[in-house]
Amino acid sequence: MKLLEEKILHDGNIRAGNVLKVDSFLNHQIDVPFIEMLGKEFYRRFGNEKVDKILTIETSGIGIAAVTATYFKVPVLFAKKSSGSNMDKDVYFTQIYSYTHNKTNTVTIAKRFLQAGDRVLIIDDFLANGCALEGLLDMVRQAGAQVAGIGIVIEKGFQGGGDKLRAKGLPLVSLAIVDAMDSATGKISFRKEARE
Amino acid sequence: MKLLEEKILHDGNIRAGNVLKVDSFLNHQIDVPFIEMLGKEFYRRFGNEKVDKILTIETSGIGIAAVTATYFKVPVLFAKKSSGSNMDKDVYFTQIYSYTHNKTNTVTIAKRFLQAGDRVLIIDDFLANGCALEGLLDMVRQAGAQVAGIGIVIEKGFQGGGDKLRAKGLPLVSLAIVDAMDSATGKISFRKEARE
Repeated sequence: MKLLEEKILHDGNIRAGNVLKVDSFLNHQIDVPFIEMLGKEFYRRFGNEKVDKILTIETSGIGIAAVTATYFKVPVLFAKKSSGSNMDKDVYFTQIYSYTHNKTNTVTIAKRFLQAGDRVLIIDDFLANGCALEGLLDMVRQAGAQVAGIGIVIEKGFQGGGDKLRAKGLPLVSLAIVDAMDSATGKISFRKEARE
Repeated sequence: MKLLEEKILHDGNIRAGNVLKVDSFLNHQIDVPFIEMLGKEFYRRFGNEKVDKILTIETSGIGIAAVTATYFKVPVLFAKKSSGSNMDKDVYFTQIYSYTHNKTNTVTIAKRFLQAGDRVLIIDDFLANGCALEGLLDMVRQAGAQVAGIGIVIEKGFQGGGDKLRAKGLPLVSLAIVDAMDSATGKISFRKEARE
């Protein structure tokens, strides 16, 4: 998506350790009028599918998932990273390793919100090595639900998670795929096929 | 807001320890078509104010804040509970005690996203004792920004945080105020003044 690539080039910052900071519009401050255009694009790409709910994971997937859900007119379900004292005990759970925070989180979804036959559209802000997405897919499988689609805002193509999922035949759409980035020069190369 | 009170009565569950579980529509699953009506109501109540951005705190404030921002056409800024390896170092921070998780979190906002003179609308899903809100207000003060309004979905009136803020003259609107609830009988009493 050309508009998103331009936004990344204009507002993104490359940091050491393959970090692409886009916290001015995506995951600390959320530029909602801009994010609405991304939500509309997900609807253009997946609007023909039957989607019962949108699934994401806390924290930074929630904003884009909620805005996207306004176009699909469906609920959002977000997987939770910690089990507070009032967390439901009857949950699906999986382990997800976070490179950003260098720790493994137990991630949960209350069983009554994800059931056999539900068709879910998975939405997240980033896809890198694919750990978070594999965790969500694991819980979708546990529930006997179906994947209607996977919509990612920014895929870091050079970390391989997206291509692994494509090789499995999963219906993955990334609105921008970064194939290379250089923290020294600030140069970012995008994969052309994400521009359709 | 009558519609919200009915939703709470229909879908909410009272648990021991003053817990009102509304995770079927507000803070695990988010009923986005319903939440859009709450966002419109916040716009009706605060739409005459100059609002530069909506401020909330992760995790469960983000969905309602993002949907509300689609009506205000402004960005959302959410305060972050943990400082990951790619967290900005130039931040406002404050300490917030969470009764739900029984721990104190350091909460941060990158300084470049909240500046002197910014008029912010604070949005959150719950207001109980007011710790989270006091933390957000502390960071707004540190920035020299101004509070255009505070919009809460559900206030637990019997925990006193809301009345303390009203006594200070803060422009607080809670769409539903629970004045009493009983986990034995399931009975919930709402404050009438939240129904205007």
